[in-house]
Amino acid sequence: MEPIVFYDLKRETAKELWAFSPNTWRSRAALNIKGIPYKTVWLDFVELKPTLSKLDLEPVLGPVPYTVPTIYDPNTKKAIMDSQAINRYLEEQYPDRHVLFPKGTAALQAAWVDNITPKMIGQTLDPLLVMHVYNQASPADRKYLRDTRRKMFGAELEQIEARGEVAERLMKNWEKQLADAGKWIDLNGHGSVFIGGCAPVNADLDLHAVLKYCTLLAPDSRAASLALTTQNGRWANYLKAFEKWAQSV
Amino acid sequence: MEPIVFYDLKRETAKELWAFSPNTWRSRAALNIKGIPYKTVWLDFVELKPTLSKLDLEPVLGPVPYTVPTIYDPNTKKAIMDSQAINRYLEEQYPDRHVLFPKGTAALQAAWVDNITPKMIGQTLDPLLVMHVYNQASPADRKYLRDTRRKMFGAELEQIEARGEVAERLMKNWEKQLADAGKWIDLNGHGSVFIGGCAPVNADLDLHAVLKYCTLLAPDSRAASLALTTQNGRWANYLKAFEKWAQSV
Repeated sequence: MEPIVFYDLKRETAKELWAFSPNTWRSRAALNIKGIPYKTVWLDFVELKPTLSKLDLEPVLGPVPYTVPTIYDPNTKKAIMDSQAINRYLEEQYPDRHVLFPKGTAALQAAWVDNITPKMIGQTLDPLLVMHVYNQASPADRKYLRDTRRKMFGAELEQIEARGEVAERLMKNWEKQLADAGKWIDLNGHGSVFIGGCAPVNADLDLHAVLKYCTLLAPDSRAASLALTTQNGRWANYLKAFEKWAQSV
Repeated sequence: MEPIVFYDLKRETAKELWAFSPNTWRSRAALNIKGIPYKTVWLDFVELKPTLSKLDLEPVLGPVPYTVPTIYDPNTKKAIMDSQAINRYLEEQYPDRHVLFPKGTAALQAAWVDNITPKMIGQTLDPLLVMHVYNQASPADRKYLRDTRRKMFGAELEQIEARGEVAERLMKNWEKQLADAGKWIDLNGHGSVFIGGCAPVNADLDLHAVLKYCTLLAPDSRAASLALTTQNGRWANYLKAFEKWAQSV
Protein backbone atom coordinates (compact mmCIF):
# COMPACT_ATOMS: atom_id res chain seq x y z
CA MET A 1 0.00 0.00 0.00
CA GLU A 2 1.01 3.60 -0.53
CA PRO A 3 1.82 5.46 2.69
CA ILE A 4 -0.92 7.59 4.19
CA VAL A 5 -0.19 11.31 4.36
CA PHE A 6 -0.42 12.48 7.98
CA TYR A 7 -0.65 16.21 8.70
CA ASP A 8 0.80 17.32 12.03
CA LEU A 9 1.96 20.52 13.73
CA LYS A 10 5.61 21.30 14.33
CA ARG A 11 7.34 23.68 16.73
CA GLU A 12 10.69 25.43 17.02
CA THR A 13 12.71 22.57 18.51
CA ALA A 14 14.89 19.71 17.31
CA LYS A 15 12.95 17.71 14.70
CA GLU A 16 12.61 14.56 16.83
CA LEU A 17 10.67 16.67 19.34
CA TRP A 18 8.33 18.32 16.85
CA ALA A 19 5.22 16.24 17.62
CA PHE A 20 3.52 17.82 20.63
CA SER A 21 -0.19 18.19 19.83
CA PRO A 22 -2.34 15.85 21.94
CA ASN A 23 -4.93 15.75 19.17
CA THR A 24 -2.52 14.54 16.52
CA TRP A 25 -0.89 12.02 18.88
CA ARG A 26 -4.27 10.27 19.11
CA SER A 27 -4.15 9.37 15.41
CA ARG A 28 -0.36 9.13 15.02
CA ALA A 29 -0.37 6.40 17.68
CA ALA A 30 -3.28 4.71 15.86
CA LEU A 31 -1.19 4.54 12.67
CA ASN A 32 1.81 3.30 14.64
CA ILE A 33 -0.09 0.66 16.60
CA LYS A 34 -1.77 -0.65 13.46
CA GLY A 35 1.58 -0.59 11.63
CA ILE A 36 0.11 1.39 8.74
CA PRO A 37 2.80 3.08 6.65
CA TYR A 38 2.56 6.87 6.62
CA LYS A 39 4.61 9.97 6.10
CA THR A 40 4.18 13.19 8.06
CA VAL A 41 3.65 16.58 6.50
CA TRP A 42 4.77 19.00 9.22
CA LEU A 43 2.93 22.30 9.33
CA ASP A 44 3.03 25.54 11.24
CA PHE A 45 -0.32 26.74 12.59
CA VAL A 46 -0.44 29.39 9.85
CA GLU A 47 -0.05 26.70 7.17
CA LEU A 48 -3.12 24.70 8.30
CA LYS A 49 -5.71 26.54 6.21
CA PRO A 50 -3.66 27.06 3.01
CA THR A 51 -2.59 23.40 3.01
CA LEU A 52 -5.70 21.56 4.20
CA SER A 53 -8.21 23.65 2.25
CA LYS A 54 -6.77 22.06 -0.91
CA LEU A 55 -8.02 18.65 0.23
CA ASP A 56 -11.62 17.45 -0.12
CA LEU A 57 -12.66 18.34 3.45
CA GLU A 58 -15.68 20.00 5.05
CA PRO A 59 -14.31 22.99 7.01
CA VAL A 60 -15.35 23.33 10.66
CA LEU A 61 -17.51 26.37 11.53
CA GLY A 62 -15.73 28.96 13.67
CA PRO A 63 -12.34 30.62 13.91
CA VAL A 64 -10.33 27.45 13.14
CA PRO A 65 -11.88 25.89 10.00
CA TYR A 66 -9.02 23.43 9.37
CA THR A 67 -7.32 21.42 12.09
CA VAL A 68 -5.00 18.49 12.58
CA PRO A 69 -4.85 15.59 12.66
CA THR A 70 -5.91 15.27 9.07
CA ILE A 71 -4.96 12.36 6.82
CA TYR A 72 -5.03 11.75 3.10
CA ASP A 73 -5.15 8.09 2.12
CA PRO A 74 -3.86 7.77 -1.48
CA ASN A 75 -5.10 4.15 -1.56
CA THR A 76 -8.74 5.21 -1.25
CA LYS A 77 -8.32 8.88 -2.30
CA LYS A 78 -10.02 9.93 0.93
CA ALA A 79 -9.15 12.94 3.12
CA ILE A 80 -10.32 12.89 6.75
CA MET A 81 -10.08 15.56 9.46
CA ASP A 82 -10.56 14.91 13.22
CA SER A 83 -8.78 12.26 15.27
CA GLN A 84 -11.86 10.18 16.03
CA ALA A 85 -13.12 10.16 12.44
CA ILE A 86 -9.61 9.16 11.37
CA ASN A 87 -9.29 6.36 13.93
CA ARG A 88 -12.69 4.94 13.01
CA TYR A 89 -11.75 5.10 9.33
CA LEU A 90 -8.44 3.31 9.96
CA GLU A 91 -10.22 0.60 11.96
CA GLU A 92 -12.79 0.07 9.21
CA GLN A 93 -10.34 0.27 6.32
CA TYR A 94 -7.55 -1.76 7.94
CA PRO A 95 -9.36 -4.19 10.25
CA ASP A 96 -6.81 -7.01 9.99
CA ARG A 97 -4.38 -5.23 12.31
CA HIS A 98 -4.40 -4.28 16.02
CA VAL A 99 -8.05 -3.77 17.00
CA LEU A 100 -8.76 -0.34 18.52
CA PHE A 101 -12.51 -0.85 18.98
CA PRO A 102 -13.16 -4.39 20.28
CA LYS A 103 -16.76 -5.50 19.76
CA GLY A 104 -19.15 -3.85 22.20
CA THR A 105 -16.72 -1.12 23.33
CA ALA A 106 -17.30 1.68 20.79
CA ALA A 107 -20.00 3.44 22.86
CA LEU A 108 -17.99 3.22 26.08
CA GLN A 109 -14.86 4.46 24.34
CA ALA A 110 -16.67 7.40 22.75
CA ALA A 111 -18.00 8.37 26.19
CA TRP A 112 -14.40 8.37 27.48
CA VAL A 113 -13.16 10.45 24.53
CA ASP A 114 -16.01 12.98 24.89
CA ASN A 115 -15.89 13.27 28.69
CA ILE A 116 -12.57 12.27 30.23
CA THR A 117 -10.17 13.66 27.61
CA PRO A 118 -11.68 17.19 27.45
CA LYS A 119 -11.40 17.42 31.23
CA MET A 120 -7.71 16.48 31.05
CA ILE A 121 -6.79 18.64 28.04
CA GLY A 122 -9.14 21.61 27.60
CA GLN A 123 -10.05 22.12 31.25
CA THR A 124 -6.70 21.28 32.85
CA LEU A 125 -3.52 21.01 30.78
CA ASP A 126 -4.34 23.64 28.13
CA PRO A 127 -4.64 26.51 30.62
CA LEU A 128 -1.54 25.25 32.47
CA LEU A 129 0.59 24.85 29.33
CA VAL A 130 -0.70 27.51 26.92
CA MET A 131 2.42 29.70 27.20
CA HIS A 132 4.63 26.66 26.55
CA VAL A 133 2.88 26.21 23.20
CA TYR A 134 3.24 29.93 22.50
CA ASN A 135 6.91 30.15 23.46
CA GLN A 136 7.82 27.23 21.19
CA ALA A 137 5.96 28.61 18.17
CA SER A 138 7.39 30.52 15.21
CA PRO A 139 6.81 34.31 15.12
CA ALA A 140 4.00 33.93 12.56
CA ASP A 141 2.39 31.18 14.68
CA ARG A 142 2.56 33.35 17.78
CA LYS A 143 0.41 35.95 16.07
CA TYR A 144 -1.94 33.15 14.86
CA LEU A 145 -2.28 31.75 18.38
CA ARG A 146 -3.04 35.18 19.84
CA ASP A 147 -5.61 35.97 17.11
CA THR A 148 -7.47 32.64 17.18
CA ARG A 149 -7.56 32.39 21.00
CA ARG A 150 -8.83 35.97 21.20
CA LYS A 151 -11.70 34.91 18.91
CA MET A 152 -12.28 31.61 20.73
CA PHE A 153 -12.06 32.83 24.34
CA GLY A 154 -12.29 36.62 24.08
CA ALA A 155 -9.06 36.85 26.03
CA GLU A 156 -5.30 37.24 25.72
CA LEU A 157 -3.11 34.14 26.18
CA GLU A 158 -1.75 35.57 29.42
CA GLN A 159 -5.31 35.73 30.75
CA ILE A 160 -6.06 32.16 29.61
CA GLU A 161 -2.93 30.84 31.35
CA ALA A 162 -3.70 29.43 34.80
CA ARG A 163 -1.62 31.04 37.54
CA GLY A 164 -1.62 31.24 41.33
CA GLU A 165 -4.67 29.73 42.98
CA VAL A 166 -6.24 28.72 39.68
CA ALA A 167 -3.09 26.79 38.75
CA GLU A 168 -3.10 25.13 42.17
CA ARG A 169 -6.69 24.03 41.67
CA LEU A 170 -5.94 22.67 38.20
CA MET A 171 -2.93 20.76 39.52
CA LYS A 172 -5.23 19.15 42.12
CA ASN A 173 -7.69 18.31 39.32
CA TRP A 174 -4.87 16.80 37.24
CA GLU A 175 -3.78 14.64 40.18
CA LYS A 176 -7.38 13.50 40.73
CA GLN A 177 -7.91 12.78 37.01
CA LEU A 178 -4.80 10.59 36.93
CA ALA A 179 -5.81 8.89 40.17
CA ASP A 180 -9.26 8.13 38.75
CA ALA A 181 -7.80 6.76 35.52
CA GLY A 182 -5.54 4.50 37.57
CA LYS A 183 -8.42 3.36 39.76
CA TRP A 184 -10.53 2.52 36.71
CA ILE A 185 -7.72 0.61 34.98
CA ASP A 186 -7.12 -1.40 38.17
CA LEU A 187 -10.70 -2.68 37.85
CA ASN A 188 -9.63 -4.51 34.68
CA GLY A 189 -7.81 -6.90 36.97
CA HIS A 190 -4.49 -7.21 38.77
CA GLY A 191 -1.55 -5.84 36.81
CA SER A 192 -3.61 -4.28 34.04
CA VAL A 193 -1.75 -1.49 32.28
CA PHE A 194 -4.21 -0.21 29.69
CA ILE A 195 -7.78 1.08 29.70
CA GLY A 196 -8.38 -1.83 27.33
CA GLY A 197 -6.85 -4.32 29.80
CA CYS A 198 -3.92 -6.28 28.32
CA ALA A 199 -3.85 -4.31 25.06
CA PRO A 200 -4.42 -0.63 24.28
CA VAL A 201 -7.72 0.44 22.73
CA ASN A 202 -8.70 3.76 21.16
CA ALA A 203 -9.33 5.40 24.57
CA ASP A 204 -5.75 4.51 25.51
CA LEU A 205 -4.55 6.58 22.57
CA ASP A 206 -6.29 9.53 24.24
CA LEU A 207 -4.66 8.92 27.60
CA HIS A 208 -1.28 8.38 25.95
CA ALA A 209 -1.72 11.62 23.97
CA VAL A 210 -2.47 13.55 27.15
CA LEU A 211 0.67 12.20 28.83
CA LYS A 212 2.79 12.86 25.73
CA TYR A 213 1.44 16.41 25.50
CA CYS A 214 2.60 17.52 28.93
CA THR A 215 5.81 15.50 29.15
CA LEU A 216 7.10 16.36 25.64
CA LEU A 217 5.91 19.94 25.37
CA ALA A 218 6.76 20.98 28.91
CA PRO A 219 9.09 18.41 30.50
CA ASP A 220 10.06 20.85 33.27
CA SER A 221 6.45 21.74 34.16
CA ARG A 222 4.78 20.71 37.38
CA ALA A 223 2.08 18.96 35.33
CA ALA A 224 4.70 16.74 33.64
CA SER A 225 6.58 16.15 36.87
CA LEU A 226 3.39 15.10 38.66
CA ALA A 227 2.39 12.81 35.79
CA LEU A 228 5.74 11.02 35.83
CA THR A 229 5.98 10.54 39.60
CA THR A 230 2.45 10.13 40.98
CA GLN A 231 1.13 6.65 41.87
CA ASN A 232 4.65 5.17 42.06
CA GLY A 233 5.51 6.08 38.48
CA ARG A 234 2.51 4.27 37.04
CA TRP A 235 2.21 6.74 34.12
CA ALA A 236 5.94 6.70 33.39
CA ASN A 237 5.50 2.93 33.01
CA TYR A 238 2.43 3.52 30.84
CA LEU A 239 4.50 5.76 28.52
CA LYS A 240 7.22 3.09 28.49
CA ALA A 241 4.69 0.42 27.48
CA PHE A 242 3.64 2.72 24.62
CA GLU A 243 7.18 3.55 23.51
CA LYS A 244 7.17 1.18 20.54
CA TRP A 245 4.09 2.95 19.15
CA ALA A 246 5.34 6.46 19.93
CA GLN A 247 7.65 7.13 16.99
CA SER A 248 7.02 10.33 15.09
CA VAL A 249 8.19 9.61 11.53
CA MET B 1 -28.85 -21.41 46.40
CA GLU B 2 -30.58 -19.39 49.09
CA PRO B 3 -32.07 -16.12 47.82
CA ILE B 4 -30.01 -12.98 48.32
CA VAL B 5 -31.56 -10.35 50.56
CA PHE B 6 -31.91 -7.09 48.64
CA TYR B 7 -32.59 -3.88 50.56
CA ASP B 8 -34.52 -1.22 48.66
CA LEU B 9 -36.51 1.94 49.38
CA LYS B 10 -40.27 2.10 49.14
CA ARG B 11 -42.68 5.00 48.75
CA GLU B 12 -46.35 5.72 49.42
CA THR B 13 -47.81 4.17 46.24
CA ALA B 14 -49.17 0.83 45.09
CA LYS B 15 -46.64 -1.90 45.90
CA GLU B 16 -45.79 -2.70 42.28
CA LEU B 17 -44.59 0.90 41.93
CA TRP B 18 -42.46 0.99 45.07
CA ALA B 19 -39.05 0.68 43.40
CA PHE B 20 -38.00 4.17 42.30
CA SER B 21 -34.41 4.74 43.47
CA PRO B 22 -31.99 4.92 40.54
CA ASN B 23 -29.21 3.60 42.76
CA THR B 24 -31.06 0.45 43.76
CA TRP B 25 -32.27 -0.17 40.20
CA ARG B 26 -28.63 -0.53 39.16
CA SER B 27 -28.24 -3.62 41.34
CA ARG B 28 -31.82 -4.91 41.14
CA ALA B 29 -31.43 -5.15 37.36
CA ALA B 30 -28.07 -6.90 37.87
CA LEU B 31 -29.79 -9.58 39.98
CA ASN B 32 -32.60 -9.85 37.43
CA ILE B 33 -30.34 -10.05 34.39
CA LYS B 34 -28.15 -12.68 36.03
CA GLY B 35 -31.22 -14.57 37.16
CA ILE B 36 -30.00 -14.72 40.75
CA PRO B 37 -32.83 -15.47 43.19
CA TYR B 38 -33.43 -12.69 45.72
CA LYS B 39 -36.07 -11.26 47.98
CA THR B 40 -36.55 -7.56 48.65
CA VAL B 41 -36.65 -6.00 52.09
CA TRP B 42 -38.53 -2.74 51.55
CA LEU B 43 -37.47 0.13 53.77
CA ASP B 44 -38.45 3.69 54.46
CA PHE B 45 -35.58 6.20 54.52
CA VAL B 46 -35.81 6.35 58.31
CA GLU B 47 -35.37 2.56 58.52
CA LEU B 48 -32.04 2.54 56.63
CA LYS B 49 -29.76 3.08 59.61
CA PRO B 50 -31.58 0.90 62.18
CA THR B 51 -31.82 -1.99 59.69
CA LEU B 52 -28.49 -1.84 57.86
CA SER B 53 -26.34 -1.05 60.91
CA LYS B 54 -27.12 -4.59 62.11
CA LEU B 55 -25.24 -6.02 59.13
CA ASP B 56 -21.45 -6.32 58.92
CA LEU B 57 -20.95 -3.10 56.92
CA GLU B 58 -18.51 -0.19 57.05
CA PRO B 59 -20.67 2.94 57.43
CA VAL B 60 -20.05 5.82 55.01
CA LEU B 61 -18.70 9.06 56.51
CA GLY B 62 -21.17 11.94 56.47
CA PRO B 63 -24.86 12.54 57.07
CA VAL B 64 -26.05 9.30 55.41
CA PRO B 65 -23.94 6.47 56.87
CA TYR B 66 -26.11 3.64 55.50
CA THR B 67 -27.54 3.59 51.98
CA VAL B 68 -29.20 1.28 49.51
CA PRO B 69 -28.71 -0.79 47.54
CA THR B 70 -27.30 -3.15 50.12
CA ILE B 71 -27.38 -6.93 49.82
CA TYR B 72 -26.86 -9.78 52.20
CA ASP B 73 -25.84 -13.04 50.55
CA PRO B 74 -26.71 -15.90 52.94
CA ASN B 75 -24.70 -18.31 50.74
CA THR B 76 -21.43 -16.53 51.50
CA LYS B 77 -22.58 -14.66 54.64
CA LYS B 78 -21.44 -11.41 53.06
CA ALA B 79 -23.13 -8.00 53.31
CA ILE B 80 -22.29 -5.40 50.65
CA MET B 81 -23.35 -1.76 50.37
CA ASP B 82 -23.05 0.35 47.16
CA SER B 83 -24.36 -0.61 43.73
CA GLN B 84 -20.97 -0.92 42.06
CA ALA B 85 -19.45 -3.00 44.85
CA ILE B 86 -22.56 -5.21 44.69
CA ASN B 87 -22.43 -5.62 40.91
CA ARG B 88 -18.74 -6.50 40.94
CA TYR B 89 -19.39 -9.01 43.74
CA LEU B 90 -22.25 -10.63 41.82
CA GLU B 91 -20.08 -10.87 38.71
CA GLU B 92 -17.24 -12.49 40.63
CA GLN B 93 -19.41 -14.76 42.72
CA TYR B 94 -21.81 -15.79 39.95
CA PRO B 95 -19.70 -15.65 36.76
CA ASP B 96 -21.54 -18.42 34.90
CA ARG B 97 -24.49 -16.13 34.13
CA HIS B 98 -25.00 -13.03 31.96
CA VAL B 99 -21.63 -11.20 31.87
CA LEU B 100 -21.84 -7.58 33.03
CA PHE B 101 -18.14 -6.80 32.67
CA PRO B 102 -16.83 -8.35 29.44
CA LYS B 103 -13.02 -8.68 29.42
CA GLY B 104 -11.28 -5.36 28.86
CA THR B 105 -14.34 -3.20 29.60
CA ALA B 106 -14.20 -2.71 33.39
CA ALA B 107 -12.14 0.52 33.22
CA LEU B 108 -14.32 2.02 30.48
CA GLN B 109 -17.49 1.08 32.33
CA ALA B 110 -16.26 2.57 35.62
CA ALA B 111 -15.47 5.81 33.77
CA TRP B 112 -19.09 5.85 32.51
CA VAL B 113 -20.49 5.13 35.97
CA ASP B 114 -18.33 7.84 37.61
CA ASN B 115 -18.82 10.51 34.93
CA ILE B 116 -21.97 10.06 32.84
CA THR B 117 -24.37 8.80 35.50
CA PRO B 118 -23.67 11.57 38.07
CA LYS B 119 -24.33 14.16 35.36
CA MET B 120 -27.68 12.55 34.58
CA ILE B 121 -28.81 11.92 38.16
CA GLY B 122 -27.15 14.30 40.63
CA GLN B 123 -26.70 17.25 38.30
CA THR B 124 -29.89 16.96 36.27
CA LEU B 125 -32.74 14.69 37.39
CA ASP B 126 -32.30 15.04 41.17
CA PRO B 127 -32.88 18.82 41.20
CA LEU B 128 -35.76 18.42 38.72
CA LEU B 129 -37.46 15.60 40.65
CA VAL B 130 -36.60 16.22 44.31
CA MET B 131 -40.14 17.30 45.26
CA HIS B 132 -41.56 14.18 43.57
CA VAL B 133 -39.46 12.06 45.94
CA TYR B 134 -40.58 14.20 48.87
CA ASN B 135 -44.27 14.18 47.97
CA GLN B 136 -44.32 10.38 47.70
CA ALA B 137 -42.56 9.82 51.02
CA SER B 138 -44.12 8.94 54.38
CA PRO B 139 -44.39 11.74 56.97
CA ALA B 140 -41.36 10.42 58.88
CA ASP B 141 -39.37 10.18 55.64
CA ARG B 142 -40.29 13.74 54.71
CA LYS B 143 -38.61 14.98 57.87
CA TYR B 144 -35.61 12.69 57.17
CA LEU B 145 -35.28 14.05 53.63
CA ARG B 146 -35.42 17.67 54.85
CA ASP B 147 -32.87 17.02 57.62
CA THR B 148 -30.32 15.07 55.55
CA ARG B 149 -30.51 17.40 52.52
CA ARG B 150 -30.09 20.41 54.82
CA LYS B 151 -26.88 18.79 56.09
CA MET B 152 -25.73 17.73 52.62
CA PHE B 153 -26.51 20.91 50.68
CA GLY B 154 -27.11 23.55 53.38
CA ALA B 155 -30.48 24.27 51.79
CA GLU B 156 -34.18 23.48 51.97
CA LEU B 157 -35.64 21.07 49.42
CA GLU B 158 -37.57 23.93 47.80
CA GLN B 159 -34.25 25.70 47.19
CA ILE B 160 -32.65 22.55 45.78
CA GLU B 161 -35.54 22.03 43.35
CA ALA B 162 -34.79 23.46 39.91
CA ARG B 163 -37.40 25.95 38.72
CA GLY B 164 -37.77 28.58 36.00
CA GLU B 165 -34.60 29.25 34.04
CA VAL B 166 -32.58 26.70 36.00
CA ALA B 167 -35.14 24.00 35.16
CA GLU B 168 -35.04 25.05 31.50
CA ARG B 169 -31.27 24.74 31.46
CA LEU B 170 -31.40 21.30 33.13
CA MET B 171 -34.00 20.12 30.62
CA LYS B 172 -31.63 21.17 27.81
CA ASN B 173 -28.82 19.28 29.56
CA TRP B 174 -31.04 16.21 29.90
CA GLU B 175 -31.87 16.32 26.19
CA LYS B 176 -28.16 16.66 25.33
CA GLN B 177 -27.19 13.82 27.70
CA LEU B 178 -29.70 11.49 26.04
CA ALA B 179 -28.61 12.63 22.58
CA ASP B 180 -24.97 11.92 23.46
CA ALA B 181 -25.82 8.48 24.85
CA GLY B 182 -27.69 7.69 21.63
CA LYS B 183 -24.81 8.95 19.49
CA TRP B 184 -22.32 6.81 21.42
CA ILE B 185 -24.48 3.68 21.21
CA ASP B 186 -24.87 4.18 17.46
CA LEU B 187 -21.09 3.86 17.16
CA ASN B 188 -21.46 0.22 18.25
CA GLY B 189 -22.88 -0.40 14.81
CA HIS B 190 -26.18 -0.21 12.97
CA GLY B 191 -29.17 -1.17 15.09
CA SER B 192 -27.28 -1.39 18.37
CA VAL B 193 -29.57 -0.95 21.36
CA PHE B 194 -27.25 -1.17 24.35
CA ILE B 195 -24.06 0.56 25.49
CA GLY B 196 -22.64 -2.95 25.42
CA GLY B 197 -23.76 -3.48 21.80
CA CYS B 198 -26.03 -6.52 21.39
CA ALA B 199 -26.29 -7.25 25.12
CA PRO B 200 -26.49 -4.98 28.16
CA VAL B 201 -23.39 -4.48 30.30
CA ASN B 202 -23.05 -2.89 33.72
CA ALA B 203 -23.09 0.66 32.30
CA ASP B 204 -26.46 -0.16 30.71
CA LEU B 205 -27.82 -0.87 34.17
CA ASP B 206 -26.93 2.74 35.00
CA LEU B 207 -28.66 4.14 31.93
CA HIS B 208 -31.69 1.92 32.54
CA ALA B 209 -31.82 3.05 36.18
CA VAL B 210 -31.79 6.70 35.13
CA LEU B 211 -34.68 6.13 32.71
CA LYS B 212 -36.62 4.10 35.29
CA TYR B 213 -36.09 6.80 37.91
CA CYS B 214 -37.75 9.60 35.96
CA THR B 215 -40.43 7.57 34.21
CA LEU B 216 -41.56 5.60 37.29
CA LEU B 217 -41.19 8.28 39.94
CA ALA B 218 -42.56 11.16 37.90
CA PRO B 219 -44.39 9.82 34.82
CA ASP B 220 -46.10 13.20 34.26
CA SER B 221 -42.89 15.21 34.49
CA ARG B 222 -41.30 16.96 31.53
CA ALA B 223 -38.13 14.96 32.16
CA ALA B 224 -40.02 11.67 31.74
CA SER B 225 -41.97 12.92 28.76
CA LEU B 226 -38.81 14.06 27.01
CA ALA B 227 -37.08 10.74 27.74
CA LEU B 228 -39.94 8.73 26.25
CA THR B 229 -40.38 10.80 23.09
CA THR B 230 -36.99 12.21 22.08
CA GLN B 231 -35.01 10.55 19.26
CA ASN B 232 -38.10 8.84 17.84
CA GLY B 233 -38.83 6.95 21.04
CA ARG B 234 -35.38 5.37 21.21
CA TRP B 235 -35.40 5.30 25.02
CA ALA B 236 -38.96 3.98 25.23
CA ASN B 237 -37.65 1.11 23.09
CA TYR B 238 -34.63 0.80 25.36
CA LEU B 239 -36.92 0.41 28.38
CA LYS B 240 -38.96 -2.13 26.44
CA ALA B 241 -35.83 -4.15 25.67
CA PHE B 242 -35.09 -4.14 29.40
CA GLU B 243 -38.61 -5.06 30.48
CA LYS B 244 -37.84 -8.73 31.15
CA TRP B 245 -35.12 -7.67 33.62
CA ALA B 246 -37.17 -4.90 35.24
CA GLN B 247 -39.31 -6.87 37.69
CA SER B 248 -39.24 -5.66 41.26
CA VAL B 249 -39.90 -8.76 43.36
